Amino acid sequence: MRAAIIGGTGYGSIELIRLIHQHPYLEVGTVVSNSQAGNNFSDSYPHLSEVIEQPLEKFDAESIAKNNEVVFLATPSGVSSNLVPQLMETGIKCIDLSGDFRLRSAEQYETWYKKRPASHEYIKQAVYGLSEIYPEKVKTASLLSNPGCYPTAATLGLLPILKTNLADKESIIIDAKSGVTGAGRGLSLTSHYAEINENIKAYKLGAHQHIPEIEQVLSDESGSPITVTFMTHLAPMNRGIMCTMYLKLNQKIPTKEVVELYNEFYKNKPFVRIRPVGVVPSTKEVQGSNYCDIGLHADERTNRLTVVSVIDNLVKGAAGQAIQNANLMFGWDEQSGLNQLPIYP
Amino acid sequence: MRAAIIGGTGYGSIELIRLIHQHPYLEVGTVVSNSQAGNNFSDSYPHLSEVIEQPLEKFDAESIAKNNEVVFLATPSGVSSNLVPQLMETGIKCIDLSGDFRLRSAEQYETWYKKRPASHEYIKQAVYGLSEIYPEKVKTASLLSNPGCYPTAATLGLLPILKTNLADKESIIIDAKSGVTGAGRGLSLTSHYAEINENIKAYKLGAHQHIPEIEQVLSDESGSPITVTFMTHLAPMNRGIMCTMYLKLNQKIPTKEVVELYNEFYKNKPFVRIRPVGVVPSTKEVQGSNYCDIGLHADERTNRLTVVSVIDNLVKGAAGQAIQNANLMFGWDEQSGLNQLPIYP
Amino acid sequence: MRAAIIGGTGYGSIELIRLIHQHPYLEVGTVVSNSQAGNNFSDSYPHLSEVIEQPLEKFDAESIAKNNEVVFLATPSGVSSNLVPQLMETGIKCIDLSGDFRLRSAEQYETWYKKRPASHEYIKQAVYGLSEIYPEKVKTASLLSNPGCYPTAATLGLLPILKTNLADKESIIIDAKSGVTGAGRGLSLTSHYAEINENIKAYKLGAHQHIPEIEQVLSDESGSPITVTFMTHLAPMNRGIMCTMYLKLNQKIPTKEVVELYNEFYKNKPFVRIRPVGVVPSTKEVQGSNYCDIGLHADERTNRLTVVSVIDNLVKGAAGQAIQNANLMFGWDEQSGLNQLPIYP
Amino acid sequence: MRAAIIGGTGYGSIELIRLIHQHPYLEVGTVVSNSQAGNNFSDSYPHLSEVIEQPLEKFDAESIAKNNEVVFLATPSGVSSNLVPQLMETGIKCIDLSGDFRLRSAEQYETWYKKRPASHEYIKQAVYGLSEIYPEKVKTASLLSNPGCYPTAATLGLLPILKTNLADKESIIIDAKSGVTGAGRGLSLTSHYAEINENIKAYKLGAHQHIPEIEQVLSDESGSPITVTFMTHLAPMNRGIMCTMYLKLNQKIPTKEVVELYNEFYKNKPFVRIRPVGVVPSTKEVQGSNYCDIGLHADERTNRLTVVSVIDNLVKGAAGQAIQNANLMFGWDEQSGLNQLPIYP
Repeated sequence: MRAAIIGGTGYGSIELIRLIHQHPYLEVGTVVSNSQAGNNFSDSYPHLSEVIEQPLEKFDAESIAKNNEVVFLATPSGVSSNLVPQLMETGIKCIDLSGDFRLRSAEQYETWYKKRPASHEYIKQAVYGLSEIYPEKVKTASLLSNPGCYPTAATLGLLPILKTNLADKESIIIDAKSGVTGAGRGLSLTSHYAEINENIKAYKLGAHQHIPEIEQVLSDESGSPITVTFMTHLAPMNRGIMCTMYLKLNQKIPTKEVVELYNEFYKNKPFVRIRPVGVVPSTKEVQGSNYCDIGLHADERTNRLTVVSVIDNLVKGAAGQAIQNANLMFGWDEQSGLNQLPIYP
Repeated sequence: MRAAIIGGTGYGSIELIRLIHQHPYLEVGTVVSNSQAGNNFSDSYPHLSEVIEQPLEKFDAESIAKNNEVVFLATPSGVSSNLVPQLMETGIKCIDLSGDFRLRSAEQYETWYKKRPASHEYIKQAVYGLSEIYPEKVKTASLLSNPGCYPTAATLGLLPILKTNLADKESIIIDAKSGVTGAGRGLSLTSHYAEINENIKAYKLGAHQHIPEIEQVLSDESGSPITVTFMTHLAPMNRGIMCTMYLKLNQKIPTKEVVELYNEFYKNKPFVRIRPVGVVPSTKEVQGSNYCDIGLHADERTNRLTVVSVIDNLVKGAAGQAIQNANLMFGWDEQSGLNQLPIYP
Repeated sequence: MRAAIIGGTGYGSIELIRLIHQHPYLEVGTVVSNSQAGNNFSDSYPHLSEVIEQPLEKFDAESIAKNNEVVFLATPSGVSSNLVPQLMETGIKCIDLSGDFRLRSAEQYETWYKKRPASHEYIKQAVYGLSEIYPEKVKTASLLSNPGCYPTAATLGLLPILKTNLADKESIIIDAKSGVTGAGRGLSLTSHYAEINENIKAYKLGAHQHIPEIEQVLSDESGSPITVTFMTHLAPMNRGIMCTMYLKLNQKIPTKEVVELYNEFYKNKPFVRIRPVGVVPSTKEVQGSNYCDIGLHADERTNRLTVVSVIDNLVKGAAGQAIQNANLMFGWDEQSGLNQLPIYP
Repeated sequence: MRAAIIGGTGYGSIELIRLIHQHPYLEVGTVVSNSQAGNNFSDSYPHLSEVIEQPLEKFDAESIAKNNEVVFLATPSGVSSNLVPQLMETGIKCIDLSGDFRLRSAEQYETWYKKRPASHEYIKQAVYGLSEIYPEKVKTASLLSNPGCYPTAATLGLLPILKTNLADKESIIIDAKSGVTGAGRGLSLTSHYAEINENIKAYKLGAHQHIPEIEQVLSDESGSPITVTFMTHLAPMNRGIMCTMYLKLNQKIPTKEVVELYNEFYKNKPFVRIRPVGVVPSTKEVQGSNYCDIGLHADERTNRLTVVSVIDNLVKGAAGQAIQNANLMFGWDEQSGLNQLPIYP
């Protein structure tokens, strides 16, 4: 099955190509990059030389639909809201990696993204593809909205405890650290090597566009409106997100029981791994893979629970989860093309 | 004035030597390293070639006292508790960079450090050298206990707000990130290049020995017993600590007022700089310098205050603050030898 | 087919496991680590949690032979010279990733490795597995000696030009840069994070044990004894080797013709890619993959040829080439299990 | 004495400010940045908050001359060729850190820089400020042309041997590695964090504009025209240049004698340090300092000499050497303001 990729020269596309190249049922189809149309792909990305040698194309919904069976959109926010309707009209299934179809509320989208929202009709149709939580809905989706990188790490780490009454739902603090690929390949001083290397930087104080997405999922699933404190940091590395999350516990509970709770919650979910008591994962332990690894510590002294959740932002936080969703949508094994071990070290 | 340095081949000593070399009133005296005694200093540290060419010596309290006017101890925990009494008997002033004299409670020391505590007599004598907060006590100290790196960043960031009634003192969460030099030059898998590079790692879940030190300062200064949630992370860089700290606010207050409060609190403190509204510091902005830079964000949506406090762990978090304390103890200008600008980038 | 791995907790083994896990015909069999026997594998390497959960075993040739069809030895030099004879006696095929069977001359081995050489009988039997150059010999090997990381990058980059008369064979200079994983997981100050980060370090001046290996291959293939100047540098990164190599040209020749020569030389070799005129590869362009990418520049002003050859030291420089050799030895497609694209960025 | 700085928001300027701030006789005067004129300096560089708080100004030769006693130009190539004449007319001394006045041949400048050369009159006046080699000329300079970063490391490493007949002057190969700050603060894909991190990249094959500068100095000093092979690499770090240089020896000579030769050559030069036999410097050993450290290895097997020369590209390779030259020009101690030890690690 041929997969078109739109937004062809960003890191999200490159990662999609890496994963599709190893997928048993998918192959790279049309690659669209309006800015670089006509150029050969491996001119921008010589690491693909002799493997993915094809010209980048201009966007053309008809032609995409004719030559491909599925479309991945890995475009900046504000782009796929325009492209998806044209594609959907042709009947092709769309998997959108941007934020354009994640928020049910158009007002929220405008507030946080400062862009015009997608049309109501398509927002309504879009299925939010947090694969471990909504597998049944994903299976029937025509328009799949792939979760953000931070929301994936945060919600997978928080949902098991929030679905109980063990924690104070008003106490959630998420301290997130990300590698620099999260900011994409676009040039800016905050991605400039000399500024980021040997540095930790907090950014977007209380204003990150992933906040409403996290709150939407947590509120939906916990059954009550949830507000979180969410702070993002840039760390001097390429890949990886760690969310260190803090919740007040309503009662004393040993770490061991929390670990069991999480293991139970994710027992048939191959991509979520819970560490044993006393161990928390580091970002390198999921590098290049689709895993979300979670460690837990219930502190007796402070009666707070710390949850450490890590993903590779380009895999489980973007392209990997998109493939996982495609697998569900097309009825394939959820792990098809995603069984690579983390690359270590 | 000649300054002896004990623990001569650790990173703390090296940083002391860098700073003393530029100090108008201090010069490097005896350098003690029991493990490398007899070797020439620049064999271990060729960056000092032709500048600090002297043999490393064995510890000998008498000889140190005869040839130096002040002693800096930059030894691992559990060492200076033995050496300080011998040195103090000679009458020489001691500045201890380890944790051995920081906690007033010997029980706490044993619990958190898993070592035998220093003798009560010397613990009582020791002055805790958080320079901006206790300058008067520091001036009269004979035994100065230099604060830990994390406690320096955390307490300087928290004290201004905790001295008011604006924040809920039970809500404090400190998410700390540190460069790898904090772990010293000793070999271990957690300082092994390939394991740390391209990685973020949480460590010492609820068990870091700096917790009781932070709580001691905060409790002393706020007037009520304070318990904090404190989580440490290793980031892939050499220098720098960032503490991102979260507190619940008791009332709505704009960031602007919090910034003013902090500016007022530190108005005559040259080494603490408060960023304006909307700006938080990154660790690189203090690299190689004795500054502690602080940024603030009072979030209207969540009514939580986020404080971002950064230091260079080897300077304000160790050797720099030790020199600052020496300046106070000997009646020199507080900034003597410490006026280097951050090295950027 | 089950593959045993000896030296189970080094980076070479970990990379073998990553690649074998994706191999269509191989699976991970016995994993031997004498130092950690009895421990569960994922305790040392949590990134393998829930995937490779098996105890590490002590070395036992009989048991290995009974339960596996091939053995990979990823042990430090001086170890497999002892183990291989025991394994070979059982009739199992051995692929040795260490330097113990690479040099035909036992004297040379002793001189450069400062260890006792393997027995003559097995040295004679060993086939040197530079896959692109000796595929026919590899196919018949029972004892395969896998090339060193530097020799792989250097010889693949030099052989096409040395097989002509275009270059002065006495003029070869190889300036090599390597990531830190090449030094393994063993602790040492030269792998200590704070010492290597933000640093470039030259090491082993004229004394690297890969020198005789490079000279052996180049002399064999060029038909005359060749001596090279070979200098190694450690760069602050995990993976990757770049060899920048300089040769005096015997005649004027445009870069274009050299590129054609190289393309012709490697025309049926899927893992060697030659960059077009004006372009040289960077190490990241082969990261995580089995490629050796080569760029060329014939300088008109100086009449020197510069060859830039890059590999991932853990893949084409170790585990990947070992798998490639296994593929040849067992009659499988040379690319089996090795078709992953480079992980970028 | 007030020092004006032109090109105020580049890394060269920032480093000048760091060094001038510690200089006993210089202070920061006018800072010119046409692109950011009117902005406060610390808005671009918060690490200077509360220390260098002044508006950036537009270029105005008259006003600069009135308010300052010396001018440092840290502008991209092609800019100071226009500004210097206006400044020189006012009688103020100029120290130019760009390449505009380094090459005596205007044709060479045009060929390598692809820009219009400075006027002949000023090129003739300019003194090339390789401080250790031309101290007497520097002392009398009105227009000082500060050497490039690579040429400083390369020529200081090569001149002692080239002034003898021990080496073949046609055999020089310079393999240079640089940190990323050498490329400045301007945005480009080759300074993008994710592209450079975990990567080594060769660039400007045979076309680097520092080649004619190196050849000019070597030819002048050795007394015969010299052509070099010079290859540049970008390494994933901020600061530091290492030149690994290879020469054929005309006769057997032990490393010890070469070390003595170099020690003799630089005996009264405080900023050049020669390592003993068997030791070569790493870039970190000069980080943040004005040192040029050199290691030597005469290889008996190949009869080639390897010279390893390291500097901090922003200090001895730019701002530090500029200050050193100012010290000589104004009759101060050569080390004034430059006695900082390297910052390690």
